[in-house]
Amino acid sequence: MPEYQAPLRDMRFLIDHVFDFHAGYAALGASDASPDMVNAILEEGAKFCENVLAPLNRSGDEEGCHFDNGAVTTPKGFKQAFAQYVEGGWHGLAADPAYGGQGLPQSLGLVIGEMVGSSNTSWGMYPGLTHGAMSAIHAHGSDEQKQLYLRKLTAGQWTGTMCLTEAHCGTDLGLIKTRAIPRADGSYAVSGSKIFISAGEHDMSDNIIHLVLAKLPDAPAGTKGISLFIVPKFLLDAAGEAGERNALSCGSIEHKMGIKASATCVLNFDGARGFLLGEANKGLNCMFTMMNHARLGTGMQGLCLGEASFQGAVRYANDRLQMRSLSGPKSPDKAADPIIVHPDVRRMLLTMKAFNEGNRALAYFTAQLLDVAHLSSDAAQRQDAENLLAFLTPICKAFMTETGLEVTNHGMQVFGGHGYIREWGMEQLVRDCRIALIYEGTNGIQALDLLGRKVLGSQGKLLLGFTKIVHRFCGAHAEHPQLKAHVAQLDGLNRQWGELTTRLGMAALKNPDEVGAAAQDYLMYSGYIVLAYLWLRMALAARQQLDAGQGDSDFARAKLATCEFYFKRLLPRTAAHLGAIEAGSDCLMQLPARCFAL
Amino acid sequence: MPEYQAPLRDMRFLIDHVFDFHAGYAALGASDASPDMVNAILEEGAKFCENVLAPLNRSGDEEGCHFDNGAVTTPKGFKQAFAQYVEGGWHGLAADPAYGGQGLPQSLGLVIGEMVGSSNTSWGMYPGLTHGAMSAIHAHGSDEQKQLYLRKLTAGQWTGTMCLTEAHCGTDLGLIKTRAIPRADGSYAVSGSKIFISAGEHDMSDNIIHLVLAKLPDAPAGTKGISLFIVPKFLLDAAGEAGERNALSCGSIEHKMGIKASATCVLNFDGARGFLLGEANKGLNCMFTMMNHARLGTGMQGLCLGEASFQGAVRYANDRLQMRSLSGPKSPDKAADPIIVHPDVRRMLLTMKAFNEGNRALAYFTAQLLDVAHLSSDAAQRQDAENLLAFLTPICKAFMTETGLEVTNHGMQVFGGHGYIREWGMEQLVRDCRIALIYEGTNGIQALDLLGRKVLGSQGKLLLGFTKIVHRFCGAHAEHPQLKAHVAQLDGLNRQWGELTTRLGMAALKNPDEVGAAAQDYLMYSGYIVLAYLWLRMALAARQQLDAGQGDSDFARAKLATCEFYFKRLLPRTAAHLGAIEAGSDCLMQLPARCFAL
Repeated sequence: MPEYQAPLRDMRFLIDHVFDFHAGYAALGASDASPDMVNAILEEGAKFCENVLAPLNRSGDEEGCHFDNGAVTTPKGFKQAFAQYVEGGWHGLAADPAYGGQGLPQSLGLVIGEMVGSSNTSWGMYPGLTHGAMSAIHAHGSDEQKQLYLRKLTAGQWTGTMCLTEAHCGTDLGLIKTRAIPRADGSYAVSGSKIFISAGEHDMSDNIIHLVLAKLPDAPAGTKGISLFIVPKFLLDAAGEAGERNALSCGSIEHKMGIKASATCVLNFDGARGFLLGEANKGLNCMFTMMNHARLGTGMQGLCLGEASFQGAVRYANDRLQMRSLSGPKSPDKAADPIIVHPDVRRMLLTMKAFNEGNRALAYFTAQLLDVAHLSSDAAQRQDAENLLAFLTPICKAFMTETGLEVTNHGMQVFGGHGYIREWGMEQLVRDCRIALIYEGTNGIQALDLLGRKVLGSQGKLLLGFTKIVHRFCGAHAEHPQLKAHVAQLDGLNRQWGELTTRLGMAALKNPDEVGAAAQDYLMYSGYIVLAYLWLRMALAARQQLDAGQGDSDFARAKLATCEFYFKRLLPRTAAHLGAIEAGSDCLMQLPARCFAL
Repeated sequence: MPEYQAPLRDMRFLIDHVFDFHAGYAALGASDASPDMVNAILEEGAKFCENVLAPLNRSGDEEGCHFDNGAVTTPKGFKQAFAQYVEGGWHGLAADPAYGGQGLPQSLGLVIGEMVGSSNTSWGMYPGLTHGAMSAIHAHGSDEQKQLYLRKLTAGQWTGTMCLTEAHCGTDLGLIKTRAIPRADGSYAVSGSKIFISAGEHDMSDNIIHLVLAKLPDAPAGTKGISLFIVPKFLLDAAGEAGERNALSCGSIEHKMGIKASATCVLNFDGARGFLLGEANKGLNCMFTMMNHARLGTGMQGLCLGEASFQGAVRYANDRLQMRSLSGPKSPDKAADPIIVHPDVRRMLLTMKAFNEGNRALAYFTAQLLDVAHLSSDAAQRQDAENLLAFLTPICKAFMTETGLEVTNHGMQVFGGHGYIREWGMEQLVRDCRIALIYEGTNGIQALDLLGRKVLGSQGKLLLGFTKIVHRFCGAHAEHPQLKAHVAQLDGLNRQWGELTTRLGMAALKNPDEVGAAAQDYLMYSGYIVLAYLWLRMALAARQQLDAGQGDSDFARAKLATCEFYFKRLLPRTAAHLGAIEAGSDCLMQLPARCFAL
């Protein structure tokens, strides 16, 4: 396994210089998150992830989870690591102090989440799903429900799940068959079978609180007839402790391509006692309130695994001796040059670096918006942040995972044949990453969400909220002595983006299939432009540091060189996506379904 | 596992209408390959692959190979399938009749090879490596060596390997440490350790004939001091049968991401008796004579797995009901529409179809050149074919595997969450495909071979050999009533290709790193243009069939629609590659190696 070191320098560069989290925290009254506190959390979080989680990553993949007669055992060390995580206070870092959390900003939770995901994505699924369940109960639970569940969940004594998918429906939740029948005592009898339930059953906590989508007997058809229920594995006794076993069981666990240490369960509910969470028939809305966070978290997996892969690849490229540089030997005293001298190896490494650091900037930019949306006392500011979040979330989820998969594949390729061997750990990163393009709404669904629901659904308003920021930025830096060429390139793309969107809006009025035909390329096209903006912000900050003689000049120069690489070698991909978008829907729709395979 | 059906209709379309294999065979005097014989071979080959090999594909992946104290056991059924393959005469199909082969053209062997690879890539490695060893012995062996080894290899009684890589060198074979010390009897004592030896040890044959790269005591340094040796697992007795065990052993097998049923072995040679094959110190040249074939075979794996993935995805997309078409319900009587109605699902399916059918055309086009190079009595014609083969081989290997990986990933994505579950078989295709981008020369090496050695190394002559064909084709069809827009697009790209290459040649004269910086994007750029040419040839043939009222009009229309999709939605990717190439090497080379990770 490539040894993981938390990229603290890059994290601090973003936190301190590019986005100034500290000013943000001060403005939002998050006074606990002082610069010293932030720094201590980064240091300690890095130690925990490097020393406790990372060593369990490959062994967890090899061992996988064990299923025996309804019980799931996680790989060796997982349970102990979770206990240490809880003990160290990591589980409640960004949770509400009213229920025992530390109340630190979401953005700080995300920074730690990156370290967790890079060191052990499978392990991170268990607390990750719990945080999702906590958000939903926090947002929609009654006071009693919050008291009953949130304290134990925050303490990590219990964990949580989200039970949405059934065998015949994942994307199309309107088709779910799980039923909830009211009981005399106000609870419900939940019956049905759910699949793909991450952390659905395991040995890491005393109880598991399932959030289950189900239909009431009189529910309207489709997505407007779905309700959300709290269904604990063990029903609570009078003292609020885990008591009698509920009528639900784990039927099996899936054998998957990757994230093998994450238990992906079939859960059978056989008249299990459940409790309505939020309003009846508004279950999907309840789920959606935590969707932004969950989707950003899934996007992060692309970054996390990309970072782990990059660290392995750079080390290998410096160590592995093979062939001579075409421009003359670089290590004449050795049998061959390290492969990092070869332009094509550098192309792969710089592609990885440019996506990882760009994606990290995107994640932090978005996390700051999460803070504002949660903490600001100014309603207009909150609404602006919500709008930008709505726009950026599908891009984070899909663009960061598509590029994350590309990055992990490059990392494997740098290793040559050794990359394909399990022992080196590079292929696991590809396998673990692959699911992130699928779950939490496939990337195709994200693309439809971006173009259809968000951009065109708001008559372009949500796009304009972002392009305005870019427009102002380009105006302010149009004359920058070193960066003006890149600023001009971004400015041009930003205009093209708006014009393209207008054309798509017109075309969609005539033919709704134009939206689906353009969506995936539109999302990727948008992602490249968003990252170009963020790369320029990083380059500006690096330039300022260099000009002021502050910081590490090697680091700043690497930022500038990677920015240049991004603009010259990756941003041209927008042309391919633009071409595909402009081809329209006819070339997709004309072939009758029966003629695809003959 | 997606059920495999050999795509006989598409194969026949290429064989009969696009490339007219029959005329080619007649001209080359390959009279055994009559149209009836070709047809019978296609039918029987399809049956064997569908019924014998395909059912062992997923079980082979799950079971993998077993290693016990030097012995390797292949998964259940593999040995029996190999016996059936040999019994059915498939093993010697394209082998020399002088040693018991059927002497059918290489191109026909490749068509059957596609079926084998689509139904069970891991299994196909065993005969595949044997064919490689047979080619090398056939080209470079003495008459005695040919008599001793080729007959048993052709009969499938013995199998073969190629032993090149060592732990510290794969790409850079000049660094190998395996030594061959002359013995008094004219044989050699071979000592060293080889890794990544496919089919290096197994239970499918009576003997294994290893072809081993090693250095003689007085060998010059580097690649000019490498010799090739025949090192049998069992030495031959006086009757030419497998006798005494040679001093070599399998130390372990690798645990890999995919092709798990293919035994990838560490082989330890401890003074094993070996026999020089070809001239001393010319071992690498001997290996290169079979490289074209082996690299085309590796490229085929991209097509094979892509085809298997496509078949699964199309079936699933027609069966799976999820959401309604945005343009109104298409299956109003069902709970939802089949997902093939959604433009984004069609984008994935058509991308798969366009790459698979385009790659198949590329493979068949190249296979015809192999026939000419092997069989033509006209030296000039042979040389022309060799030149085109030299040019197209790295494109086949790298472009077909890069796009094959994209295709298998799309196939998995079409399945949503089910694509990630092993049971459905779609993720295995991704894992099995991934190695093809690495072995037989990484795709980065293929790219350097194309741009550096082939194109610029011939002062553009090898490129011109292909662009001339395209130029003539475009001239001949510039006024085609339905296809002229595509012809013009291809013509423009063909010119741009030549101009770009001239600029690259000039830049490389000043700075050799320009070659490495451009190589990978240049290869992909070239691949897209090559496929555009082949797609137009297919479209022309389909158009002719439609106009003449011949053949299946659905099939012909699907060809035309897929051609249009390729030109409109995939060919624009050339713009991204062009942009990256034109960025030059500075943005890759300026960052000091120490600054990549900080």
